[in-house]
Amino acid sequence: MNPVTMQLVADKYIKMALEEDINSEDVSTNAVMPGCRKGTADLICKDEGIIAGLAVFKRVFTLLDAGTETESFVKDGDRVSNGQLMATVTGDIRVLLSGERTALNYLQRMSGIATYTRSVADLLKGSRTTLLDTRKTTPCMRIFEKYAVKVGGGSNHRYNLSDGVLLKDNHIGAAGGVREAIAAAKAYAPFVRKIEIETESLDMVREAADAGADIIMLDNMTYDEMAEAIRIIDGRCETECSGNMTKENIAAITDLGVDYVSSGALTHSAPILDISLKNLHPVD
Amino acid sequence: MNPVTMQLVADKYIKMALEEDINSEDVSTNAVMPGCRKGTADLICKDEGIIAGLAVFKRVFTLLDAGTETESFVKDGDRVSNGQLMATVTGDIRVLLSGERTALNYLQRMSGIATYTRSVADLLKGSRTTLLDTRKTTPCMRIFEKYAVKVGGGSNHRYNLSDGVLLKDNHIGAAGGVREAIAAAKAYAPFVRKIEIETESLDMVREAADAGADIIMLDNMTYDEMAEAIRIIDGRCETECSGNMTKENIAAITDLGVDYVSSGALTHSAPILDISLKNLHPVD
Amino acid sequence: MNPVTMQLVADKYIKMALEEDINSEDVSTNAVMPGCRKGTADLICKDEGIIAGLAVFKRVFTLLDAGTETESFVKDGDRVSNGQLMATVTGDIRVLLSGERTALNYLQRMSGIATYTRSVADLLKGSRTTLLDTRKTTPCMRIFEKYAVKVGGGSNHRYNLSDGVLLKDNHIGAAGGVREAIAAAKAYAPFVRKIEIETESLDMVREAADAGADIIMLDNMTYDEMAEAIRIIDGRCETECSGNMTKENIAAITDLGVDYVSSGALTHSAPILDISLKNLHPVD
Amino acid sequence: MNPVTMQLVADKYIKMALEEDINSEDVSTNAVMPGCRKGTADLICKDEGIIAGLAVFKRVFTLLDAGTETESFVKDGDRVSNGQLMATVTGDIRVLLSGERTALNYLQRMSGIATYTRSVADLLKGSRTTLLDTRKTTPCMRIFEKYAVKVGGGSNHRYNLSDGVLLKDNHIGAAGGVREAIAAAKAYAPFVRKIEIETESLDMVREAADAGADIIMLDNMTYDEMAEAIRIIDGRCETECSGNMTKENIAAITDLGVDYVSSGALTHSAPILDISLKNLHPVD
Amino acid sequence: MNPVTMQLVADKYIKMALEEDINSEDVSTNAVMPGCRKGTADLICKDEGIIAGLAVFKRVFTLLDAGTETESFVKDGDRVSNGQLMATVTGDIRVLLSGERTALNYLQRMSGIATYTRSVADLLKGSRTTLLDTRKTTPCMRIFEKYAVKVGGGSNHRYNLSDGVLLKDNHIGAAGGVREAIAAAKAYAPFVRKIEIETESLDMVREAADAGADIIMLDNMTYDEMAEAIRIIDGRCETECSGNMTKENIAAITDLGVDYVSSGALTHSAPILDISLKNLHPVD
Amino acid sequence: MNPVTMQLVADKYIKMALEEDINSEDVSTNAVMPGCRKGTADLICKDEGIIAGLAVFKRVFTLLDAGTETESFVKDGDRVSNGQLMATVTGDIRVLLSGERTALNYLQRMSGIATYTRSVADLLKGSRTTLLDTRKTTPCMRIFEKYAVKVGGGSNHRYNLSDGVLLKDNHIGAAGGVREAIAAAKAYAPFVRKIEIETESLDMVREAADAGADIIMLDNMTYDEMAEAIRIIDGRCETECSGNMTKENIAAITDLGVDYVSSGALTHSAPILDISLKNLHPVD
Repeated sequence: MNPVTMQLVADKYIKMALEEDINSEDVSTNAVMPGCRKGTADLICKDEGIIAGLAVFKRVFTLLDAGTETESFVKDGDRVSNGQLMATVTGDIRVLLSGERTALNYLQRMSGIATYTRSVADLLKGSRTTLLDTRKTTPCMRIFEKYAVKVGGGSNHRYNLSDGVLLKDNHIGAAGGVREAIAAAKAYAPFVRKIEIETESLDMVREAADAGADIIMLDNMTYDEMAEAIRIIDGRCETECSGNMTKENIAAITDLGVDYVSSGALTHSAPILDISLKNLHPVD
Repeated sequence: MNPVTMQLVADKYIKMALEEDINSEDVSTNAVMPGCRKGTADLICKDEGIIAGLAVFKRVFTLLDAGTETESFVKDGDRVSNGQLMATVTGDIRVLLSGERTALNYLQRMSGIATYTRSVADLLKGSRTTLLDTRKTTPCMRIFEKYAVKVGGGSNHRYNLSDGVLLKDNHIGAAGGVREAIAAAKAYAPFVRKIEIETESLDMVREAADAGADIIMLDNMTYDEMAEAIRIIDGRCETECSGNMTKENIAAITDLGVDYVSSGALTHSAPILDISLKNLHPVD
Repeated sequence: MNPVTMQLVADKYIKMALEEDINSEDVSTNAVMPGCRKGTADLICKDEGIIAGLAVFKRVFTLLDAGTETESFVKDGDRVSNGQLMATVTGDIRVLLSGERTALNYLQRMSGIATYTRSVADLLKGSRTTLLDTRKTTPCMRIFEKYAVKVGGGSNHRYNLSDGVLLKDNHIGAAGGVREAIAAAKAYAPFVRKIEIETESLDMVREAADAGADIIMLDNMTYDEMAEAIRIIDGRCETECSGNMTKENIAAITDLGVDYVSSGALTHSAPILDISLKNLHPVD
Repeated sequence: MNPVTMQLVADKYIKMALEEDINSEDVSTNAVMPGCRKGTADLICKDEGIIAGLAVFKRVFTLLDAGTETESFVKDGDRVSNGQLMATVTGDIRVLLSGERTALNYLQRMSGIATYTRSVADLLKGSRTTLLDTRKTTPCMRIFEKYAVKVGGGSNHRYNLSDGVLLKDNHIGAAGGVREAIAAAKAYAPFVRKIEIETESLDMVREAADAGADIIMLDNMTYDEMAEAIRIIDGRCETECSGNMTKENIAAITDLGVDYVSSGALTHSAPILDISLKNLHPVD
Repeated sequence: MNPVTMQLVADKYIKMALEEDINSEDVSTNAVMPGCRKGTADLICKDEGIIAGLAVFKRVFTLLDAGTETESFVKDGDRVSNGQLMATVTGDIRVLLSGERTALNYLQRMSGIATYTRSVADLLKGSRTTLLDTRKTTPCMRIFEKYAVKVGGGSNHRYNLSDGVLLKDNHIGAAGGVREAIAAAKAYAPFVRKIEIETESLDMVREAADAGADIIMLDNMTYDEMAEAIRIIDGRCETECSGNMTKENIAAITDLGVDYVSSGALTHSAPILDISLKNLHPVD
Repeated sequence: MNPVTMQLVADKYIKMALEEDINSEDVSTNAVMPGCRKGTADLICKDEGIIAGLAVFKRVFTLLDAGTETESFVKDGDRVSNGQLMATVTGDIRVLLSGERTALNYLQRMSGIATYTRSVADLLKGSRTTLLDTRKTTPCMRIFEKYAVKVGGGSNHRYNLSDGVLLKDNHIGAAGGVREAIAAAKAYAPFVRKIEIETESLDMVREAADAGADIIMLDNMTYDEMAEAIRIIDGRCETECSGNMTKENIAAITDLGVDYVSSGALTHSAPILDISLKNLHPVD
């Protein structure tokens, strides 16, 4: 993760997560370790998957004590296996103990998402279709989860409501139709925004393409409907298909020729990757 | 969720989640809806499970506009089914559209946790064993996730490092032994804290019980080891078993007679419950 | 300004501005008005121009006391004249006095920008060229200043570094060339972002168009260079011209046929519009 | 700018300005520069004026990365000319690119104010009259703008409503008269505050001087009225004249012998000074 | 306390105090009161003294629930006696219980300060000397403690380092002497600030008065030294005496004719006034 | 104080305290010291007592300038005497002057509490009774005040409403009785919380012990009542006595055999310990 992103965006969430876990003091640690003692611990993977979030893991500790040092033997995107030593963390033992859970909570979740994303992306290999995430992220975790999707081999859709235009059924209804919605968006949105519209029928697809949409989302359509939609669009717009796409069913759309497929499951239902901090021992 | 908890604790996370999704403006909505128009939408379940987080769902909208009204037809803890109308939300259509995703992101995740927890808790029915969560929660989501565990029929372990004492292997090592760690914790921690210690062998169990631990955690022990540990403890301490407890394997420990079993999976690996906001339409 | 934007984005700046002006108490007001007394004051224009920011003006007072009421006789975008009564504000006199300066500081600056923008936009009338702002806004004022540009008849370029791609000379240098920079951006940026590139020569223009840029900025080119660039691009990309465009010189480019012209002066050098709050008197 | 002021006061605004410009990541930079590369760039003046805000310019970069180094060849208050190299900035190229616009937005505006202030202050040279700013500053910019006024040769009036007493017509009305307002302020305000009162007629001037005001503001009076007012006051109070004082008209009051003249234009209507960051290139 | 002060200044401290006391939930209250039930409680004084801070007491509850109502039978500054019913608070019982301690912590301390201040101020009655507080306040309590001093009959010295000039021995040393320090302050400080200087000898007093100090502080001088200092100053400056002034010794300086006497003890050593919230009972 | 506690918890209060004292700039210091000059000052005790808070004192200065160095000759918990040199602080003189008051305000108050606590704790020496603090702390000072109690030889009761259960008369009333309140708390509270209940009569004591309370508070009982209560409890629960316990009366309960005695006076009514920063002088 870029250091500017870390500093300006990620840090405020990481600090809140640490404050969530320590509101007065870490009683257990302070009871048994009244002073500073230098120690080191091993970051060990307990499952097989794709690692993501090492910089965030490290940042948790340096936010508590800038002198904490993490030596990594893998990098984000690497495939790791059960029992593998991925990094060592060295510093004030009190800092290692107080930061451990928060650091692992980030790393496990980000790696879980990267692992799941990689497994889905692999199914699309050889096709012309790119895998996308959605805004179905965990609250206060978007910067971390979207990063993990990229590490896993997916691409990012818009980051939020401010930086992308996606006209859904309700927007279309409010505007009075597909054509009107697209016209309103073109008139209102900063011109650097592409205009994407969600369609649920071939008539809507046709109207959207004619009205000059930049991207047409084919929402919850059958395979045959999607094929026909792509034929209608005929290269005039980019295409995205969407609707409960998971590891179990995504292979079915690889030969459609759709440009993008988006999957909420990447961020909302990936299980974590099991990772431990073990063998903490003094090093002085 | 208690209104004081909402006001003092939950709100700051919800506001950050909203700011994560809108940093300048909701371009799509503002393009097609230049002014205020009152509308209503239906909150519909698209899967079967346990609903949790309705007050948080509602709060997302009232934080954007205090005049938004949510009428609920179910309450937290209810079992809901695919297609069921759970609530309606009524207010400024721009507010409904801008808040929808954040509100659902909370509700889906909390309900997913409640659903998974209920399925695990059901396996413990009839036993004397209580299901517990852990600190393996998503960063910045603890207040929501621990609440969802309770809604699902689980109980909460300590909230964070400040309000509970749990002496792990590293604490024990630092203190110089089980007995020393317990003594240090009793001397240091506010007396209202129970002292819990993690044990990995029967010797440690014996020493911990003799040293006056309030709670002994049996970590990653076999069934037979746990049974022997409980016999050794003989009611002198509360007991908790721990270690990769999931829906798949938890039934095996129901006849052990352990007081508590804790499961990180409740919060770190429950898939979401699929929920939609549909049928938005003007009501003026 | 949309109420969601106000709540989530603008409020935090407005509160900081109020705290900047009152860090302990408003000594003058509290000295002469020990208790609450209801009063009303007139918002009067002292110059001719375009009004922008009435909702922000009003919000300053309701953030101090939700019961303050503003009745407006004009709306954002209206042309106002010297001496015109634009609104009345009614509430606790202490609130009117304590909020007056901050409210006017916003309203005067936003109206100054709208007024200047309108004067520039008028010069482009009849042409196919749209007037754009830039990121040369006052720190902590962007949400207000970009809104004022729209009120004045301009359009918004990207909001910030996160929601638009603009590859400048330094990005091109880092990537190793125009073609490489565009390729890197297409590979990296979320696909909803259009790729804009800044060009300083006709060779660069040619290369950028060939490489599939979405938008080509013609930076500090002469009239003839721009004309030739537009001929080279030939409708393959959108075009934006840029470089010290002000009220004094912008008319010269109206017949070029460029799609957009951006002007930093709209936000960094517009003088304020002079506005006063007068005739405060009790109304009980 | 004093480092304590920077740390305690300025930093929070600068961080908000950076967050305004980067809410997820700097997409353009991250696309073309995936890793750290050291570079240097030149800060060049593109107009003639007075430079102000170099420490703020520098601080933008060190807040992003403490390792960024700025070498300055001029200091605040120096007159700079078109084409002059004022400083070089060296560090991670990603940091230079991501911070550039925010750093320049501060520096250009502060230098614009210093330049305008200097031009006005020069008109008062040789007179006994000191030039003052007002509270008509840009919201969230006061600490920067008032500093720039001093750099330009002006003096600061009160910082905000909490640290100075200025009784205006409305305060006088509320108190029941000039005498009553001054008495109330003397009784209420901390005794370290001087009491200033705004007067609009010679009668008010007389009453204010008799009542023991510390400072009398002559608001929007004619030259002859001001001369008579100063005669009436006869050294008993300090005097300040006020009312649309700009570069164009301020010379007319130099021989009045008034102690202070305040001008809102210094901060609300100074155009920026044009400054660029150029020639970014790698230095490793 | 003025509502603008409360909103802009006091609220942020009160919220932090509430968050200090509830970081996840009020466990005791939520255990026994699962839902909303309306109740009322009595605010009873358990000692004799001066009440101060009723608006802050009330604000604690309305920040938790805007619907909480406080009916007061006394007002700030009233003398109250042991057993006296001062107010009733009515609202959601959970809110009353959760806010009780924080509300009382403010009220008890503020009333303690007002009580102590009144007792000291009474000793100065009939003299020309005004009692002042200092900056020796409890961190994060200044706005509350300085208000309490006024309620108790004292006056406020400067609020903080930004809004008053007080040149102490170290400033004098840095400037190179009394005369130089006063000259530097007159040149640098906004002209609305009075210049106060701390003196420790009659020579310093003489030099300060000659140099045009507005206020001269006589620090830790004997009675005779102060008398001589006042004679030297002879009305040219205001005078303040300072140095371990408490209830026990302040009467000794009443006939000196010094203008002000400042006492840190008012805020740093006043014991609280004992106050209880009693008789909570349901009212539905 | 543990560095993690300082970083995550204490820093935010210390920063607010500094911002309370400097909202624009330290005018006096900046007037006489335009640039950086290195100096050193002595921290001298002016009374006899127990020192507490040296790390907080030091932190105030390093938050302003990380380069400030404090050399301590005593440590928290040491008895110090009038005139004793406790530490020297060395750094930018402007930083020393601007941070002095805030640093001392913390140190004086914390040391005052430690001093008072030590004097009370000494009275309990030789008894089996442990001295406890309460939640009657100064708002925004709890982390500092509870630490000072420990330094003084007291122990901490619960930190706040979230991390301890204490059922008072109102909770008991709401639950419908002692037995019901204890049952509700056992069912609701995380199992790591001990359940404490406040009793006002021997009947309540009996019922609480029978119902399985972990701790019974004897509130405002006579000596004989407490003795009888302890006999009734007979080791089944821990015991705490409470009610206006101060230095003056606490000795009377030393032979009761109660486990704990809590005293609000430790934090709400301890006078400060007088401490000065003296002899600031340049060291370059």
